[in-house]
Amino acid sequence: MALGEFELIDRFFRACGAPRADVVLGVGDDGALLRPPSGADLVAVSDTLVEGVHFPAGSPAESIGHRALAVNLSDIAAMGATPRWVLLSLTLPRVEEAWLAGFARGFGALARAHGVALVGGDTTRGPMTIGVQVLGTVPAGEGLRRSGGRPGDALFVTGTPGDAAAGLGLIMAASDTATGEAVARRTAAGLRSDASADALEALRQRFLFPTPRIAEGEALRGLASACIDISDGLVGDLGKLATASACAAVLDVEALPRSAALAAVTPEAALRFMLDGGDDYELLLAVPPAQVARVASMPGLTRIGELRDASTAAPVTLRRRAADGTLSETPATGAGFDHFAG
Amino acid sequence: MALGEFELIDRFFRACGAPRADVVLGVGDDGALLRPPSGADLVAVSDTLVEGVHFPAGSPAESIGHRALAVNLSDIAAMGATPRWVLLSLTLPRVEEAWLAGFARGFGALARAHGVALVGGDTTRGPMTIGVQVLGTVPAGEGLRRSGGRPGDALFVTGTPGDAAAGLGLIMAASDTATGEAVARRTAAGLRSDASADALEALRQRFLFPTPRIAEGEALRGLASACIDISDGLVGDLGKLATASACAAVLDVEALPRSAALAAVTPEAALRFMLDGGDDYELLLAVPPAQVARVASMPGLTRIGELRDASTAAPVTLRRRAADGTLSETPATGAGFDHFAG
Repeated sequence: MALGEFELIDRFFRACGAPRADVVLGVGDDGALLRPPSGADLVAVSDTLVEGVHFPAGSPAESIGHRALAVNLSDIAAMGATPRWVLLSLTLPRVEEAWLAGFARGFGALARAHGVALVGGDTTRGPMTIGVQVLGTVPAGEGLRRSGGRPGDALFVTGTPGDAAAGLGLIMAASDTATGEAVARRTAAGLRSDASADALEALRQRFLFPTPRIAEGEALRGLASACIDISDGLVGDLGKLATASACAAVLDVEALPRSAALAAVTPEAALRFMLDGGDDYELLLAVPPAQVARVASMPGLTRIGELRDASTAAPVTLRRRAADGTLSETPATGAGFDHFAG
Repeated sequence: MALGEFELIDRFFRACGAPRADVVLGVGDDGALLRPPSGADLVAVSDTLVEGVHFPAGSPAESIGHRALAVNLSDIAAMGATPRWVLLSLTLPRVEEAWLAGFARGFGALARAHGVALVGGDTTRGPMTIGVQVLGTVPAGEGLRRSGGRPGDALFVTGTPGDAAAGLGLIMAASDTATGEAVARRTAAGLRSDASADALEALRQRFLFPTPRIAEGEALRGLASACIDISDGLVGDLGKLATASACAAVLDVEALPRSAALAAVTPEAALRFMLDGGDDYELLLAVPPAQVARVASMPGLTRIGELRDASTAAPVTLRRRAADGTLSETPATGAGFDHFAG
């Protein structure tokens, strides 16, 4: 059954998002008409997912729909904003109703959970590319930036970074179990032979269905001096925050929050995933000394280091405590994920 | 020379658009912070261009940059809105500085001509796909829609529809001149043997560098009862306006504005391009009787028909006047361009 472009949009996406009173005119015209609240700054974010680059070919459609929206909601969260409206540009090689239904289910459930209305976009034939733009608002002047950190600010992170990268490693390793290459991949994923099935599934779910930290971002307005989301890896994104803030950063390796599920991989792999694994979409933030106690009391946030003067050579330094209590520092080498590098 | 993603964005796009005082924070953070004027509705549009679908492979990079923004500005114009900010999501198979420079030149010149600031987006490796979103504003409640037309409203169009489709036909025919297929394509393009080089170039330019009708759209606020841009062909898009307005439409074939350049193709081909050719990005609008005189006095607008009661069978009827003055009516069959049809 070959549905046309317009019927496709109608059928799967017209009722996909949340209803909102501030949508004057939604999908179906040349553009959407939206009514922002007075006294607000608009926050606009845009992120594109390409099959084989941002997710493995053959990923579940529901996960692709969820992730396409989640990575954008995470950017909204990093600005301390409240999401309102989303546009979806779907480029697909062919029409598959089951795939579209799954995609719309994943995308729609997350949109409705955050009260986000789907107000426009387009559908085109081509290699699978999913472009999403989310519009949100913050009270004027209160948007969080990467650049506000100062030496002496404490660093906090939400959740448990590393899980999503471990989950992606497991998914890639499992994608071709019959060959020697798969064994090599499993080794690269650092899988322990005694890992529990529950832990493995928890890690996979963290990659397939990441949680954007909207409520945390909103709560941090007026408290955090700088904020960024961890999409490209903790060290790489911390380097960006530190550089934008004209600071250096030091990370206490033993302080990094570690999920129980991450015990499914070797300690070496776990550390690598925590420091350099992308796809977590947790928030990383700097907090001035006067606000540290208040932020430390919030659930789900862990203090992991501090900003200091930029005079040190590396943007990010790893600080470790030996068994005898001695502190040692080494420059971190992770540089984040660059789609055109190499 | 392999530039990284971030350097790419910096180098070609940071100064690409117009500076604007209402950009609180532009490219370089997780999102842009924008300050809309009070009492305005926001207009959000999104259109994606895929190589080989929306433009021939190997099109000039400057044209691709221009068109990617122009098709979105045209949607803004169709809403009667003023464009302010743009986001660009560029997916490219490889890094080519000359291509990027050309793309940024075409995109940037049009952005600056309309005072639009480039405030965000992303760059990813993958099959060439260009996603653009433009945000604009209209005074609250004054956005133009497709659905406001009433029986008795006059129909007007800007510019001279058909030129872009004729230009695309010429470009496609010229792309492979050595083969029999190219001859077949040239015949399909309806090229006359005595066509002037100037006319052919004018038609090509109309495809490569379409003009979004921003000033016309703004001037039509409060005058037009309904508006749509002609991206998929005059008959197809008129059908959408008529259907959204719960009307039928009649088009006076002899009244259609025809460029001098369109004489480069046969009369049969010219009519086909005018009625069914896409890519024009002219505005098509309905005007209540009380406003007709005022709209008719505007430069660049031509009256081409009227809306009437929806009781006739076809959404769009073609009306022709024979040499003896007799009027005849036939249902139009064009249905617009559906990317998933066939």
